[in-house]
Amino acid sequence: MENELRPTTDAGRAFVELAERHAEEAREGIEERDRSGTFPTHLVESMKASGFTKALVPAELGGGGMTSVHDLAVGLNRLGRVDPSLAIAINMHFATSVVTARNWRGAIEAGDDAQRAAMEVFHGMMAGGTIVMANFTEPGTHLTTPLTEVTKVEGGWRIDGRKIFSTLSPAADVFTVGVRERRDDGPDQSRVAIVFRGTLGQTINDDWDAMGMRASGSGSVTYENCVIPDDLLLAGNDYGHESELSLVVGSAGNLGLIATMLGIAEGAAAHVLHQVTTRKKGPEGRLVSERRGIQHAVAEMRASIATSRALIDRVGHLLDEVIVERPVAEVTIDDLHAIVAEFQTAKLVSNRCAIDAVDKALQLSGGQGYFSSSPLSRAYRDVRAGPFMQIWSPNEAYEYIGKVTLGLPPDVDA
Amino acid sequence: MENELRPTTDAGRAFVELAERHAEEAREGIEERDRSGTFPTHLVESMKASGFTKALVPAELGGGGMTSVHDLAVGLNRLGRVDPSLAIAINMHFATSVVTARNWRGAIEAGDDAQRAAMEVFHGMMAGGTIVMANFTEPGTHLTTPLTEVTKVEGGWRIDGRKIFSTLSPAADVFTVGVRERRDDGPDQSRVAIVFRGTLGQTINDDWDAMGMRASGSGSVTYENCVIPDDLLLAGNDYGHESELSLVVGSAGNLGLIATMLGIAEGAAAHVLHQVTTRKKGPEGRLVSERRGIQHAVAEMRASIATSRALIDRVGHLLDEVIVERPVAEVTIDDLHAIVAEFQTAKLVSNRCAIDAVDKALQLSGGQGYFSSSPLSRAYRDVRAGPFMQIWSPNEAYEYIGKVTLGLPPDVDA
Amino acid sequence: MENELRPTTDAGRAFVELAERHAEEAREGIEERDRSGTFPTHLVESMKASGFTKALVPAELGGGGMTSVHDLAVGLNRLGRVDPSLAIAINMHFATSVVTARNWRGAIEAGDDAQRAAMEVFHGMMAGGTIVMANFTEPGTHLTTPLTEVTKVEGGWRIDGRKIFSTLSPAADVFTVGVRERRDDGPDQSRVAIVFRGTLGQTINDDWDAMGMRASGSGSVTYENCVIPDDLLLAGNDYGHESELSLVVGSAGNLGLIATMLGIAEGAAAHVLHQVTTRKKGPEGRLVSERRGIQHAVAEMRASIATSRALIDRVGHLLDEVIVERPVAEVTIDDLHAIVAEFQTAKLVSNRCAIDAVDKALQLSGGQGYFSSSPLSRAYRDVRAGPFMQIWSPNEAYEYIGKVTLGLPPDVDA
Amino acid sequence: MENELRPTTDAGRAFVELAERHAEEAREGIEERDRSGTFPTHLVESMKASGFTKALVPAELGGGGMTSVHDLAVGLNRLGRVDPSLAIAINMHFATSVVTARNWRGAIEAGDDAQRAAMEVFHGMMAGGTIVMANFTEPGTHLTTPLTEVTKVEGGWRIDGRKIFSTLSPAADVFTVGVRERRDDGPDQSRVAIVFRGTLGQTINDDWDAMGMRASGSGSVTYENCVIPDDLLLAGNDYGHESELSLVVGSAGNLGLIATMLGIAEGAAAHVLHQVTTRKKGPEGRLVSERRGIQHAVAEMRASIATSRALIDRVGHLLDEVIVERPVAEVTIDDLHAIVAEFQTAKLVSNRCAIDAVDKALQLSGGQGYFSSSPLSRAYRDVRAGPFMQIWSPNEAYEYIGKVTLGLPPDVDA
Repeated sequence: MENELRPTTDAGRAFVELAERHAEEAREGIEERDRSGTFPTHLVESMKASGFTKALVPAELGGGGMTSVHDLAVGLNRLGRVDPSLAIAINMHFATSVVTARNWRGAIEAGDDAQRAAMEVFHGMMAGGTIVMANFTEPGTHLTTPLTEVTKVEGGWRIDGRKIFSTLSPAADVFTVGVRERRDDGPDQSRVAIVFRGTLGQTINDDWDAMGMRASGSGSVTYENCVIPDDLLLAGNDYGHESELSLVVGSAGNLGLIATMLGIAEGAAAHVLHQVTTRKKGPEGRLVSERRGIQHAVAEMRASIATSRALIDRVGHLLDEVIVERPVAEVTIDDLHAIVAEFQTAKLVSNRCAIDAVDKALQLSGGQGYFSSSPLSRAYRDVRAGPFMQIWSPNEAYEYIGKVTLGLPPDVDA
Repeated sequence: MENELRPTTDAGRAFVELAERHAEEAREGIEERDRSGTFPTHLVESMKASGFTKALVPAELGGGGMTSVHDLAVGLNRLGRVDPSLAIAINMHFATSVVTARNWRGAIEAGDDAQRAAMEVFHGMMAGGTIVMANFTEPGTHLTTPLTEVTKVEGGWRIDGRKIFSTLSPAADVFTVGVRERRDDGPDQSRVAIVFRGTLGQTINDDWDAMGMRASGSGSVTYENCVIPDDLLLAGNDYGHESELSLVVGSAGNLGLIATMLGIAEGAAAHVLHQVTTRKKGPEGRLVSERRGIQHAVAEMRASIATSRALIDRVGHLLDEVIVERPVAEVTIDDLHAIVAEFQTAKLVSNRCAIDAVDKALQLSGGQGYFSSSPLSRAYRDVRAGPFMQIWSPNEAYEYIGKVTLGLPPDVDA
Repeated sequence: MENELRPTTDAGRAFVELAERHAEEAREGIEERDRSGTFPTHLVESMKASGFTKALVPAELGGGGMTSVHDLAVGLNRLGRVDPSLAIAINMHFATSVVTARNWRGAIEAGDDAQRAAMEVFHGMMAGGTIVMANFTEPGTHLTTPLTEVTKVEGGWRIDGRKIFSTLSPAADVFTVGVRERRDDGPDQSRVAIVFRGTLGQTINDDWDAMGMRASGSGSVTYENCVIPDDLLLAGNDYGHESELSLVVGSAGNLGLIATMLGIAEGAAAHVLHQVTTRKKGPEGRLVSERRGIQHAVAEMRASIATSRALIDRVGHLLDEVIVERPVAEVTIDDLHAIVAEFQTAKLVSNRCAIDAVDKALQLSGGQGYFSSSPLSRAYRDVRAGPFMQIWSPNEAYEYIGKVTLGLPPDVDA
Repeated sequence: MENELRPTTDAGRAFVELAERHAEEAREGIEERDRSGTFPTHLVESMKASGFTKALVPAELGGGGMTSVHDLAVGLNRLGRVDPSLAIAINMHFATSVVTARNWRGAIEAGDDAQRAAMEVFHGMMAGGTIVMANFTEPGTHLTTPLTEVTKVEGGWRIDGRKIFSTLSPAADVFTVGVRERRDDGPDQSRVAIVFRGTLGQTINDDWDAMGMRASGSGSVTYENCVIPDDLLLAGNDYGHESELSLVVGSAGNLGLIATMLGIAEGAAAHVLHQVTTRKKGPEGRLVSERRGIQHAVAEMRASIATSRALIDRVGHLLDEVIVERPVAEVTIDDLHAIVAEFQTAKLVSNRCAIDAVDKALQLSGGQGYFSSSPLSRAYRDVRAGPFMQIWSPNEAYEYIGKVTLGLPPDVDA
């Protein structure tokens, strides 16, 4: 299907080219990984080797120099067509990288050398191949109210709690962990703890078993008496509120996720279009594509895909404007809510479009797509992951979007 | 959720009660059967023992005396809530039983003793526990144009071909097989061959592996030089046209399938309603059900279920009127197309409602439903089977319904 | 389109027959009434004369003896196909009549002779031709919190306030008016005042000017120093809560409204089906109906209509069970909320289906339907009235349905 | 609502600014024009005077020098928010101007001086204030098969036929008229006749009376023995086939129409957002916007608008690439079908979104929007015009899109 998403910067083009190469590489073994739920560590190694994982690191710091989150999403879209598990996994890394890049830029703007240096350490690690992931989701609570706690101990902080949906955890070197610090002298704090892989007390569990995204390495991670040094617990914000961090991650950092869902839909569409334009049916051996019901459903499938593309394209550019190109200090928390509301709107519709397109691909397949051996049945299981993704699921998104649009405080009953 | 479908006859009530008992029985091992794709032969044995499988056999011939296909569907709805694989499997038997009952009734009306006797043989077998299935679907063709052929040989007919989606085949004793007879002296014929399990040349393959309905025993059956006696090849109709048989099976015989899909949705809804009304979330421990986004989505889920119920209820009564209660000779082929169009319309919308309701249940589950261990992820895989089912899938149904509504010949470009 | 809604009782059949006769009568002048916004008083007179308006009055009290609200809705459906303005107007009368019949039945059950006598007065008036309407809606508030007030004065009560959407007001003889009584010694009360046409201080304004339902006489009624005798102010319930009365009116009393919307859709469908099966298009003069896009859209239109019919049919029978057939004293307020939630669900979907069917009819008309002279353009304007109707509009219905389904108190944030 | 469509070129920005000024000017009298169906000739005069109508004329020929059809659509979007009738009327002119500009560019590329000169005459007329319209639609046929005929007569050609939906006809100076030339020596031809206003035999009828777009001047034009000089009958193509002209008009020339529909939706949304954020409801006087059902519906409305915007934005840029920026000779008929299919897809979804957004605005208005005096009721009537618009309506669009996507000949059964 023509008119796919296209990168708009040189660095973006290089990134998308790499993404397509890694997508090809991912074809091998994809069915086996889906069956067994194995995470493809070797593919992440390959992404390190190719420089893919340092795409968002500034060129002057040895990275790919890509800044556009629109283009980042296009690359993930390409990966998503073949291996959406891998795409959402590596997005965990990129989402952190987006924040690092923005903080670095903000530090330069503000002349804050300490923060700049800290971010350059992060950038340097990523340029050298370090893989970072964001470890925030927990059962029975929301992102703004982690139940995992940090407690001051001698020489650092102790972390105790359990995280789920820890996508990319099998390959991550660094975990940024959302935690609660209880305080007597003021409101409790939501903070971020940096945990290096191998820290005592952290257990990365091989327990991911879901109906889809089976090779995404999204198991649980437990923290029991896991102690980190003082300076690895970052400053936070009042417990129970959205932070600038969560708003940036939840929009610019997550655009790649919805582009991945689009990729699933595009992959499914390509598969079934090939099928109906080559298979003949009936004693008279007429091409399936010549049937009118097929043509109608193809148009419906295309409409879903075109809609998803348009939404991602447009919100990608808007995110670049507000989060990447505008001086950090000029972006207020209200500006962030405004762009997050726009992103959430696009996400709601785009994810639904991706699901609908896969549904139509199944319909067009005429029963073949229902077999376990068909990539369509995998697409059907994978694509449903989209709406669950943070922040916000459809359970909360309408309220959030409605309140921001109406100029009300964006406190969601979540 | 209140206002479930209810049977309307005494025999129907007895049948639904039995269905609920068999559903309870099916709970054990359901996850294991889903994982391994094993067909539960023991549950079919139990259905024989309880008299469930002879429900549609007239009371005077030793059966349950149920005539209403509405009530039949209600029973399958109950099974579908727990074990939709089993429900669609056993519906294969009931669909044949519906036809037998109608033909028997027609023979009595017409005073056709031979046909009556033939049908009583069938009824008698079913009263005695014989399980029958309809073996019609083939890859690359449509129901009206089977590629499996019969050839006259000495002492009978030889069958050669391959059937897929042979649901219930692991437990069936008798297979009614759609075949093509080539003719030199007139148009080719679509006929039905009766094959007893164990006939040489029939191979029931254990090759069912799909994303859902995994315990339905829907593998392929091959016929290679499979010879049956002359009188087991039934009279047919011109090749390439809908027959009265296919119209009756495709409506009255298939109502149970869409009621099964509704059952899946009801099961998913019950699961998630229990979850949100008992689980607490967040540090303040508030019930999930108290959140407004949850309430909204619950209403949407309920709307889908209420719509599906209403459609099945109404079309069930209409089917009873036209196909069960009206004298057989008074029902023209146009009458059949009219009621099939009504049924197809209900099927289109009802299957979509069931899918939507399961989608909402997943949304409400907040990610828990995506785990392999959740019944919701099974429901998501199972419920998508509905739209594939014969006659007609959404690829063809719009054209069929449109043409019948417009008074045009119902030839579908399928 | 086949399989229309059918009455299920003898009295219902007589009622539907009358409805069809009045619908025929309403054809004349319908376009002029739509243009000018004139209420057809003569048609209401004709309905009095034929006995139509006393259909719900018990036979022993001189009425039609119809009890089924399902059948009532079927009659309004027939009227709605031709003149939906008239249908919703006369439903105002029937909604009150439904309540009277239920209260009368409850009084007999309870042996409450006073209440029985009071209801028999009402019944008697309706048997004699009196037309009653419910005057409840006000701008800027909800049904449970009227801003119109009653104040005790010597010899009676004074009413002051303004009602809108006073459908049927041009022809009503008796107005039942929702009012607030402020109290010092307890919670304020919501009560119902009975105002006879012509009472000083009541002004029936000829100010109805809306985009649709233009002949429904839905203007405003003002009450300024309008004094009624003591015994015409009925006992009420605490201000701000749903009453049994509003729940009965809002379900059994309003089923006719959604059946009217279905009628609009059916009328539009019949119009456009006639058009496409008789008009030829293009130089080759092919019937429009032979075009494949037309056939597809016809199927979609039919699906919407079949869905609406099924929902109304089913909820009509459920309403009959709970509100008409079950002893009044056995129906708790929770039972009423349960059935109202079911009704609201049906209403949400059914009204949407009616709107969608009219939309498809317009699409099928190919531009002709957009002309002012086409009944389709009128249908488009009329059918959108459905979702506004009380209780509840889609703004509130999801919350209400969700809460009832979840077992939470049904307090709506309206 | 933030993130409106924005022009991307300097000439586009100037155009959009003018459009906003003309939109303000159009506010006065808009309700009266809707009521009476009067075309605002004075507003077109004002557009001539401001230079608005020569926006697409090259700067070197005295025009505004805008080339982007994306930006053209943005300007029409702004007009559409206030006066969609005017927007679709003036788009008739711009659609012709788009073709002129493209043909002029193609002539320069090809070194075809005669064609260049001819186009410069057209451009010159438009620079001087001439208003052009495309007069193609007829009852009972499709664009590719006009029933209006030209016949060779002495000194020219005689035109006979009747056109409908002749939007802008009250103010047009030049009519480009689709006609059929019958031929004995080859296939009949579809040609374009240029008719100057005032030519004998042309009658511009004041007979536009539709439910919406009432001030768009879309009445019929009849041609009876209307003779034009030889050189005003342009070369054509075989009768019954899409021409390059119709494909360019039907995509680049019609983008403004769907942007107008979006404008209607945005206008309705702005109206109702103002209403719910300023009106208080209920005895407690709470802002309507604080109600949860309102917030949910606002989010749904926003989703529809964001989707429409994204689709128009993206397809606008794609149209600019293929139709405006790529050398004319490099664009094959297949390229045109490819981009028209993309445009049609966007149109289908975008028009549906605009309709849905207006529907939600009505819902949010709580009944106020149903009054004739509300701009929402006008929006509801106006916005439904979108799907009727050529080429293709939803009756045909699915088939067209499906066939192009499947690589089949794009012959539509229209």
